[in-house]
Order: sequence, then structure tokens, then C-alpha cells
Amino acid sequence: MNEKGKWTIRFHLKPTQILVLGFLFLIILGTILLNLPIATNEHKSIGLIDALFTATSAVCVTGLVVVNTLDFWSPFGKVVILILIQIGGLGFMTFATMFFIMMGRKIRLKERLIIQEALNQYTLSGMVRLTKNVVLGTLLIEGIGAILLAIRFVPQHGLEGVFMAIFHSISAFCNAGFDIVGDSSLTPYVGDVIINITVILLIVLGGLGFTVWIDVLRVMKDKFANKYGWKRTFKKFTLHTKIVMVLTFSFIVIGFVLFFLLESGNPNTLGPLSIKDKVLGSLFQSITPRTAGFNTMPLDQMNHASKFLTILFMFVGGSPAGTAGGVKTVTVGVIILSVLSVIRGKEQTEAYDRSIPENIIKRALAVVTIGIAVVISVTMILSVTEIGTSFMNIFFESVSAFATVGLTLGITGSLTTIGKIIICITMFIGRLGPVTMALAFSMRGKSKTSIKKPEEKVMVG
Amino acid sequence: MNEKGKWTIRFHLKPTQILVLGFLFLIILGTILLNLPIATNEHKSIGLIDALFTATSAVCVTGLVVVNTLDFWSPFGKVVILILIQIGGLGFMTFATMFFIMMGRKIRLKERLIIQEALNQYTLSGMVRLTKNVVLGTLLIEGIGAILLAIRFVPQHGLEGVFMAIFHSISAFCNAGFDIVGDSSLTPYVGDVIINITVILLIVLGGLGFTVWIDVLRVMKDKFANKYGWKRTFKKFTLHTKIVMVLTFSFIVIGFVLFFLLESGNPNTLGPLSIKDKVLGSLFQSITPRTAGFNTMPLDQMNHASKFLTILFMFVGGSPAGTAGGVKTVTVGVIILSVLSVIRGKEQTEAYDRSIPENIIKRALAVVTIGIAVVISVTMILSVTEIGTSFMNIFFESVSAFATVGLTLGITGSLTTIGKIIICITMFIGRLGPVTMALAFSMRGKSKTSIKKPEEKVMVG
Ligand SMILES: [K+]
Ligand SMILES: [K+]
Repeated sequence: MNEKGKWTIRFHLKPTQILVLGFLFLIILGTILLNLPIATNEHKSIGLIDALFTATSAVCVTGLVVVNTLDFWSPFGKVVILILIQIGGLGFMTFATMFFIMMGRKIRLKERLIIQEALNQYTLSGMVRLTKNVVLGTLLIEGIGAILLAIRFVPQHGLEGVFMAIFHSISAFCNAGFDIVGDSSLTPYVGDVIINITVILLIVLGGLGFTVWIDVLRVMKDKFANKYGWKRTFKKFTLHTKIVMVLTFSFIVIGFVLFFLLESGNPNTLGPLSIKDKVLGSLFQSITPRTAGFNTMPLDQMNHASKFLTILFMFVGGSPAGTAGGVKTVTVGVIILSVLSVIRGKEQTEAYDRSIPENIIKRALAVVTIGIAVVISVTMILSVTEIGTSFMNIFFESVSAFATVGLTLGITGSLTTIGKIIICITMFIGRLGPVTMALAFSMRGKSKTSIKKPEEKVMVG
Repeated sequence: MNEKGKWTIRFHLKPTQILVLGFLFLIILGTILLNLPIATNEHKSIGLIDALFTATSAVCVTGLVVVNTLDFWSPFGKVVILILIQIGGLGFMTFATMFFIMMGRKIRLKERLIIQEALNQYTLSGMVRLTKNVVLGTLLIEGIGAILLAIRFVPQHGLEGVFMAIFHSISAFCNAGFDIVGDSSLTPYVGDVIINITVILLIVLGGLGFTVWIDVLRVMKDKFANKYGWKRTFKKFTLHTKIVMVLTFSFIVIGFVLFFLLESGNPNTLGPLSIKDKVLGSLFQSITPRTAGFNTMPLDQMNHASKFLTILFMFVGGSPAGTAGGVKTVTVGVIILSVLSVIRGKEQTEAYDRSIPENIIKRALAVVTIGIAVVISVTMILSVTEIGTSFMNIFFESVSAFATVGLTLGITGSLTTIGKIIICITMFIGRLGPVTMALAFSMRGKSKTSIKKPEEKVMVG
């Protein structure tokens, strides 16, 4: 067996196990460190369950917290959390990107070229180079983000402002949602243009996914070399990039308009603000559920429709191979395209003069169905363990954990121990589930070639 | 063009329009009749919106009511409601069955034979005979149901008990959920064995669908002619019948166990009852959301988990070509099978040594996705129009209307006018939507043969 064959076997055997075990190890390490007395401001251990909860939340870049990050954790504790976030976010993104490359082996020529361009070859050295690129790109963006945030934080907090800028830049880019502002996330900055725009850009960039970055860089290089218009530029993108861009843009606009309409008149949220602040607040609330987890308005004061809309956006989440969670834009996009093709009576699912393979549609269906099943199960279990908590609060918390969002209607701190453990498991499943599933699904199905069973129709709907 | 060709064209042109216009006409007629002063006990017109609401609820066999059916409506009004239910339930079932026959044209030999057995031919006279069979079967079952119910109602209410028996038999078989017991559905009969078992059997029989009846009759005839065991008997059923039976049975058992566990200790529902009554109550609560709409325990007193479970069962609903609503058991079954095939790495979606065609999986995906979209939209809109109503109550009401269930947590009567109109539209969409969609979807897609676009992969999950 040749060099390439060996690598394939080694990797095909258990990439999912590598991912699961790696994250598990990181969570255990984080739990041990955060359980130390030195990690807290009062130099008293937080206790195992809450240490586990915080470590899981950080590694899974969720941002649900049982204590106020600013006041409770010591500088040591804060640095541990920050490192866990960075490794969790980066580790996930690198792994997901590698997975995409592996998928790329069976991808058509055009995409092969893009990936080769970034990688030279599907060799181990190529993988190393790819990982290096992901890390460098991440650090570059986080660095720029930190400088922009420092413009606001340093005048306010002096030297500590530097740490705040770095912390929030990493937390935003990794879609982690941890903050060290206080006990109400970024609400003090609801009308602050520089904080809002910087954080929004970091969230969106992190959530687009590394594969989209590569593709955009490739096309832009080409565009400026050959000087053609934007319409032709868009055509040059891969189908994946097109779907990510269109859906990301659409969801942001739809969310912005709906939150503006729903909350502008709410005296407890955007009501008392100026038009500029209302616009910023609605825009931020449209971005953050997918799946950053910061908030600039008091979520529990929003009306039912806004809470429900937030739940839907959280479930969708960001794009594949990025730092965001959820079932992913492209997954939802593929399902929408498939439904449209059924309505139009077309055999194939089409988009931008391409057809999407049947097995990808079924994989999307599996990811969403399993996602819904997880959310339903967790909501049911918490309904039993968390007596006296409203259904909306429980439903919201379940989706937030599954999609690793970190937004809450305020029940995280008062969860029962069983509830905390369930949320921990949900964050873990939510962070690793869709990817490992997608990994597992795309690994299989090609080797097995079973005899086709005779078809028989059934009636649906 | 031959006889057969002509018929195909005439029918293929607009079966969906026939269905929609027929139901619309029936609703308008019902509204006019129920709006008459003679329809109410106080001989004062109920008003247009509430007449429309009641007529829509009856025709769409939903059972959501804005007034107490027993006390408010005169005997005339009650008879109008009963006739609307009977025509709505029967008309829908006949139409759905016809649609199945039309689908049967492209069905493999075995099913063709079953249908031919019932129909002789795909001719207009065959259709007439089919319709006659559906009507006769329905009247037979409803007649037996009425006699059984009369055992309880006549001793209690004398001659009026006869009407009560007929009313509830029709309402149960048609999965309509209207009752003339009082203002709390069948709660007075929570522990009554004869009422419970009769109503449960009527609901389940109505919800199985006419195609399953034909198939069961065919196989049973064969079984007793050739005297073979039950295992072989099961194998003789069509795939459709197998899926309907297994899912119907599974959902009933799962629901029964969960409701028993969740509500046995609830002092406001099953808590104070004897074991026998707890069993009956849990069983009934497992059956009624799919999609009968009677209730024997106070729904608003159930805990969150039970309410949520009820919502899920309501959304699933009954089986195709029956009187029940929802997205249908087989639709959910096809999706579960598809997800399992993805997990197992199989190319085809298999069940009982058969594979399910790709276009049926996509149709199932479309029905569920559109169903979820409708429920989400209605919940969002009602969240805005019904201020001060809890999210759970609104969510429950939306699903109940969409799946034409008729269960409520008590908000129907106090809905705003806009809310009532939205629920009316939802009931109409919910009743006709999945079928007309399935109809429309299966009509198309065969004539169009477009050139296959080049495939391009995207990353999901
Ligand atoms: K997050
Ligand atoms: K009903």
C-alpha cells in the first residue's frame, strides 16, 4: 500500500474518536484547573460541577455561565477560560477544515484546485500547512479585533482594558460568548458603534468558516488580476461559498428587520433608545444568536415573538468549518433548496446551475432531524428536572446549549445539579455532534454496495 | 386519445382546486347556517367571525371551539355542526383515497392488484364504487360506535342520549373532537371503560386510513382461506400498511408510558385517580392528540413535559387517507427510515426488504418542513396579536390548529378577532395543505425531464 493509502486508512479509522477524545481531554484539564482555589477571586474552589460546567462551556465555545465571569474568576481563572476558548474554537475549526479537505478528495475538479492551491497536496505536510494557515488567519483577525476594541476599553479601564480587548476579541471570533464586562453581557455597550461593529465583524468572520475564507481569497486574487465585475466575481465562488454568503446575508437582514419591528416599541428593551441605538441593537440581536452568545439587550425582557425568533436563529447557527455552532446555514439551505425542488416538480435539487448530490440532502436531513430530536429530548428532561421554570426559558436554554450559543433567559445559574449536567452533555453533543455525524456519514456509504431492494411506494402527507 | 387518457387529463388538471373549492364552499355554507339566530339556543346570531370559526373547525374536523357546543347551539345548530363534520371527514377521506388510487397507477403490481380488487378498474365507475365503499364502511363503524356509546348515554340522558351517542361516534371517527358533554370535553368519563375504549377504537380506526382498511381486509381474507400464522400474515401487508401499523402502535405505547409516568403523580390530573383510571387516562391522552381532540384530563393542569409531548404527538397526527390530521405517521416514518439509512451508511432507504423511492423521501421532507414553517409562522404571529398569553399556550394552539386536533390549553374563546381568523386559516391549511401538497408534488416531476446539472458538493452539519 502506498503512502497515500496508509494515510487514508489511519485517518478513516477514527477521526471522530480523535475529535471526541481530544475535546474530552481538554474539558477534563479545564475542569481540574478551574476547580483550583487559585482560579477564583475568593481563593475558594468553585466545586466540581460548576468547574465542569464552565470548562465545558468554554471548550465548546458556548458561553453559558453559572457565575459572573468578571467578578468570580481570578486573573488565573480568566486566562484558563480564555485559553480553553481559543483551543476549543481553533481546534474545532482546524478539524472541521481538515474534514472538508478529506471530503474534497471526492470533490470535482474546481474545488480540488482551490484546496490544492491552499495545500499543495493531501499530504501530512499539507495538513500541517493548512493548520498553520488557519491559526495564522485566526490570530491576525483576533489581533485586529483586539486593537479596535482597545480603542474603547483602554481609555475606560487602562491597562486592564488591553486584557479586556484581547479577551473579547477572542471570545467574539470563537463565537464563545464569554464576557468580562459584568453580569449583563454587552448591554452597557448597546449603542456603542465601535464595540458593536467590531464584535459583529468578528462573530461573522469566525462563523463563515475557513473554507469560505480560502475561496474568497482565491476569487478576489483572480478578480483583481483580471479586473472583472462583481456579478462575474460571484459566479466564480464555489457553490458552498455562494450558499453561505446568501444565507448569512439573508438571515442577518431578516433578523434585523424583525427584531427592529418587534422590539422598537418595547419599553424594557429598545423602546427608550434613539433610532441609531435601535438599529445597532436590532442588528446585534440578529447576529448574536448565530451563535456568539453576547447580548446588548435584556433578553428576558423581549416579547415572546423575539424570544422564539432567537431560538430559531440559534438552532440554525453559523456556517460549517467555522467557530459557530447550530445545525449550520448550508444544512438549512440544502433542505430549503430540496423543498423548493419538490414544489417545482424537479427531480434534482438545484442551485446556481449546479445540482446537489442526493446523499448530501439526506445528510442534511439527518443532521437537522437528529438536532431536533436532541433539543426535544433535552427540553423534555429539563421540564421534569427544573420544576417551576417556564417552558420558554427551558426551551430557550436547551437550544442555546445544543447550538453552543450561550444566550439565556436567566436560568443557567439556578439550574439543578442534574440540569447542569444535562446542559453540559448537550453542549458537548451540540459542539461535536453535527461534525462527527457529518464525518461519520461521509466516511461510510461509499464502501458498502448492497443490492438494491425492490422499490415500494408509500403515501405521505 | 382513449377513454383512459381523457380521464387522466381531466383529473390531472386540477384535483387540488376541486378539493380546496369544495371545502371552501362547505365552510361558507356552514358559516351562513350557523350565523342564523335559529342555530343558537338563545335565538340570537353568534356573529360572523365565530360562525366562520365554528364552521371551519367542523369542516376541517378540528374541534377548537369559541363557545360551549352543548349549551350554546340549538338542536338545529348541533345538527349543522354534525353534518359539517361528517361531510368534512368523509369528503376528505374519499378524496385522499382517490388520490392514492391515482398514485397507484405508477405503483408496482402487488398494490395494483389490491386496488383493482377493490375497484375493478381505474374508471369513473370504479371511483364511484370506491366512494360508496368508503361511505358504507364509515357508516357501519360509526353505527357500531353509536350503539356502544348508547349503552352509557341512554341510561344517563334518555332519548337525548341517542343523539349524544350518534354525535360522539361521528365526532370520534372523523377525528373531529367536538363534544356535547359540557365545557370540559370528556373529562367526566375519565375512568369510564366503555366510553374510553369505544372512543379510542373509533379514533384509531378513522385515523388509520381507508387504504389500510382495504389492505387488512384483503390479507385477512387470504389468511383465513389459507390458514397461515400471524408472522406470515404481517408479511403479506403492503409496506404502507406495515409502516402505519408499527408506528401507530409504537406511538400509542410510547405516549401511554410517558403520560403515565409524567402525570400519575400530578395532583391536578391523574394523581387522585385509581390505578385503572390512571391507565385509562394515560392511554386516552396518548391517543387523542393524533388528532381526535377530546380530552379526559384537564390539559392546562398537565406539567410542561406532558404539554410538550402532546404538541409533538399533535404535529405527527394520524395516517394518510384517513380522517386524522397532522403531517402523518408515514411521513415521519419515512424521515426516520431515511435518517437511519444515513447513519448506517446505506445508499437506499430500506424497510421490510423494500426500498422507498427517493422522490417520496423528498416529498416527506417537504411536507414536514412546510408544516414546521406554518407552525412557526402562526406561533410568531399569535405571539404578537395575543399579548399576555403564555408562549406554551400559543404554541400549543398553533400546532393544534395546524394538525386539526382541537385540543387547547384554554385560550380559544378569548382569542382576538385577528387571532381567530389566523387560527381559521391555519385549520384550513392544516387540513388541506399536506394532501394538496402531496397531490401537487406527485402530479408533477414526472412530465418534466430537465437536463441534469453538474453536481457540486457542499458541506453540511
Ligand atoms: K457561543
Ligand atoms: K380533531
